[in-house]
Amino acid sequence: MKKTMLLFLAFASSLLFADAPKYVFVFIGDGMSVPQRMVAEEYSQKLGKGKLILNHLSTHATTRTCSATSLVTDSAASGTAIACGVKTYNGAIGVDADKNKVESMAEAAKKAGRKVGIVTTVTLSHATPSAFYAHRQSRGLVYQIALDLINSDFEYFAGGGLPRYNDKKDDEYCGNIFELARSKGYKVLDKTDEFRKLKPSDGKVIYTAKRDDSMLYTIDNDGSEPTLAELTAKGIEMLDNPKGFFMMVEGGKIDYAGHGNDAATNLADLMALNDAVNEAMKFAKKHKDEVLIIVTGDHETGGMTMGVAGTGYALHIDRLKYQKCSIEKFKKIYKAEAKRIEEEEEREMVFADAKKLLEKWFSFDFSGKSAADDKAAGDKFAKANAVGKGNPMAINKKELEMLEEAFKDGKLPVAARQIINNKSGVGWTTGAHTALPVLTTCYGKECERFAGFLDNTDIGKTVKKLYKSDD
Amino acid sequence: MKKTMLLFLAFASSLLFADAPKYVFVFIGDGMSVPQRMVAEEYSQKLGKGKLILNHLSTHATTRTCSATSLVTDSAASGTAIACGVKTYNGAIGVDADKNKVESMAEAAKKAGRKVGIVTTVTLSHATPSAFYAHRQSRGLVYQIALDLINSDFEYFAGGGLPRYNDKKDDEYCGNIFELARSKGYKVLDKTDEFRKLKPSDGKVIYTAKRDDSMLYTIDNDGSEPTLAELTAKGIEMLDNPKGFFMMVEGGKIDYAGHGNDAATNLADLMALNDAVNEAMKFAKKHKDEVLIIVTGDHETGGMTMGVAGTGYALHIDRLKYQKCSIEKFKKIYKAEAKRIEEEEEREMVFADAKKLLEKWFSFDFSGKSAADDKAAGDKFAKANAVGKGNPMAINKKELEMLEEAFKDGKLPVAARQIINNKSGVGWTTGAHTALPVLTTCYGKECERFAGFLDNTDIGKTVKKLYKSDD
Repeated sequence: MKKTMLLFLAFASSLLFADAPKYVFVFIGDGMSVPQRMVAEEYSQKLGKGKLILNHLSTHATTRTCSATSLVTDSAASGTAIACGVKTYNGAIGVDADKNKVESMAEAAKKAGRKVGIVTTVTLSHATPSAFYAHRQSRGLVYQIALDLINSDFEYFAGGGLPRYNDKKDDEYCGNIFELARSKGYKVLDKTDEFRKLKPSDGKVIYTAKRDDSMLYTIDNDGSEPTLAELTAKGIEMLDNPKGFFMMVEGGKIDYAGHGNDAATNLADLMALNDAVNEAMKFAKKHKDEVLIIVTGDHETGGMTMGVAGTGYALHIDRLKYQKCSIEKFKKIYKAEAKRIEEEEEREMVFADAKKLLEKWFSFDFSGKSAADDKAAGDKFAKANAVGKGNPMAINKKELEMLEEAFKDGKLPVAARQIINNKSGVGWTTGAHTALPVLTTCYGKECERFAGFLDNTDIGKTVKKLYKSDD
Repeated sequence: MKKTMLLFLAFASSLLFADAPKYVFVFIGDGMSVPQRMVAEEYSQKLGKGKLILNHLSTHATTRTCSATSLVTDSAASGTAIACGVKTYNGAIGVDADKNKVESMAEAAKKAGRKVGIVTTVTLSHATPSAFYAHRQSRGLVYQIALDLINSDFEYFAGGGLPRYNDKKDDEYCGNIFELARSKGYKVLDKTDEFRKLKPSDGKVIYTAKRDDSMLYTIDNDGSEPTLAELTAKGIEMLDNPKGFFMMVEGGKIDYAGHGNDAATNLADLMALNDAVNEAMKFAKKHKDEVLIIVTGDHETGGMTMGVAGTGYALHIDRLKYQKCSIEKFKKIYKAEAKRIEEEEEREMVFADAKKLLEKWFSFDFSGKSAADDKAAGDKFAKANAVGKGNPMAINKKELEMLEEAFKDGKLPVAARQIINNKSGVGWTTGAHTALPVLTTCYGKECERFAGFLDNTDIGKTVKKLYKSDD
């Protein structure tokens, strides 16, 4: 009976006198709310790729995202809310509504002796990651934010680019960021193979996959860039030490695809974030009771829904598999092909050329056969989803007219996007953010603190409290 | 120390050998998912009416709603999933995918000695309530479903209508439902004042507020019908007994307003459901550790979002307060006014007449002044949301054209709906259901069993298990 009693006391005291877990992971899907997570979930399950681990963690919390100034937050205000635990105005990085600097959970972790890593698929000076290490009145001050980055002394930065120079050359200019970083003891690198060879003995690291830009969309990455899971696994390798570590990992381009209402690209980046969470889960399995994993979003982007006019009771999320590149990349391909035809064949692009591209990148079927078989695809474009037994990518009369018209207007990629969204049943209501709450899921030590109805600031407040940081 | 040990043992055994709580409430918002719950939450907070208790219960669960046949469920399949714990085909009531009858949690409660109540704002024979007491291969068999109702022996039914006769007069016809109900010992009533006078001594009760129809929308109810909170409070009064009770309460018309993309009506019915939950919470406060409250939805309706093109970072959910009746009722008002003008004034309705109705029921401001002040409301209709300092209900040029055109086409109410949705920033992508998961929140004894990622069938399975019913 003594053992039981001890167990009970240990349980009770753990509730009262909690310490920060040795290892803390915070995963943020930018623009990732319930619709994004479930589109990816249904897609993954339908394609036999199994459940998404990030949706199936122990605790779930509905998380309100509004900023101090609006129901609809931007990534700076929400990043600051999550990282620092305060409500602030849209655009603010690591400062409160009165522009006072507020300590972030990453800084609290550092103070508590942990090593710290910041990982993202967008630029390292972007709103979400910078809220964890920078304190600036505006997200636009990217050079100053980069100065904060190299002064953070955090051990591991990996992501897209970083501004090297300050275009404005103002008072705060004090040199090339990369040179300054090296003078602060950082190993700075930008080659994929160099990144893959990194070892803990390399010390503090800044890896930028791009110059001033974000990394590739997952759907467009042929292996030339590391995946988010690779960045995370390397982070674990670089940061692991007897005092533990804190790592923030952002799937930053989920948001970009949301702004572009590009469902296939959106879910591919979300699944890449899921793979990154999986790396943390593998690590957690090896370090029982020492790991806390939080997965959240900073806001919803696009007003994404899982049903459009005409889908009725039939939804075909799996049809998004037919899209082979991001809409952004397709726009470039389309432009390049027009240029090639003009230069090499000395003629203007015609609709037949465009059709070939649509066949290749979206598997659109212009044979007319399957579409003709389909009664439901009659006079209402929205009913395209009900193509039925024929090829689901068969283009019906209405869709064809829509594509031809868009071709004339120079808007073919937008029409292609609309058709594949409709055939898959994914709806969107805006190109901006919305006020839908996000879902926070959590696993491991102290996870029960992140359940129920949360404000996004609760995440920052609670993690900082675990690090016993009063700021 | 002995006391501590006993407490621990009590805690451990409660996890292992759980009993059903004495009182179980299951609240279902038909067509209520995260967007609906948060539109109402933000509206309530913005108008100073406080938080919605149904969003702030202890545990939160993301709940997948797909049916056996589709990612998008109907209310019959999802009702059966929640009530009976099985996946089935769209349209099925209390039977599994092979059409076998499956016991519902309400029936399990009855078997365990509890009194049972079924409450809804739609007809009592509608899909969601019937899944708790009926077993039929199709939701369309409403007469047969009503037969199951009176054979259920449940103690309290309150809601909209019930089919008295069988139109088809087929083999199963065995008389007027209300007469049959009386012969089974039910007190049957349909008057509001009679309902309000009901006492536990009246025994088993069937209260139908309407003949074959659903109850009024909350926004249209001037007090002539009881509220959902009243139906719930009366249920508590009628059912309370030493052996406890089970009550299912449905906000059924949230779904109707969702199908109609009618945001103001949607949130008013959701807030009425919240008031009903509040009745259960008050009861729970008086019966510590004896009450379990589950609040869920059966699916999302409408593809509702909290942001539309043009809202940008400014969302004005509170503007929905300017809508004074449901769009459905406005259609009737509009038609009646046209008829009145024709009969009394012997002329056709003109746009000036329609404007008067829009001023009265939507506070639309046709003065042109405020709208002219607003630069953002220039050439893009969607930017109406940014009306800014002027009267938010000022109708700009684009909106006016839209209304005039709709008037000519006989579609004025639809245009009015679109304008108020846009001004409030509420988006919709379909008139049907979507596959967005719903949110399940829970309070009280055993609530931790309803946390994390759930399938809708988990709710039925777990409650039935608490009642120790193997079916």
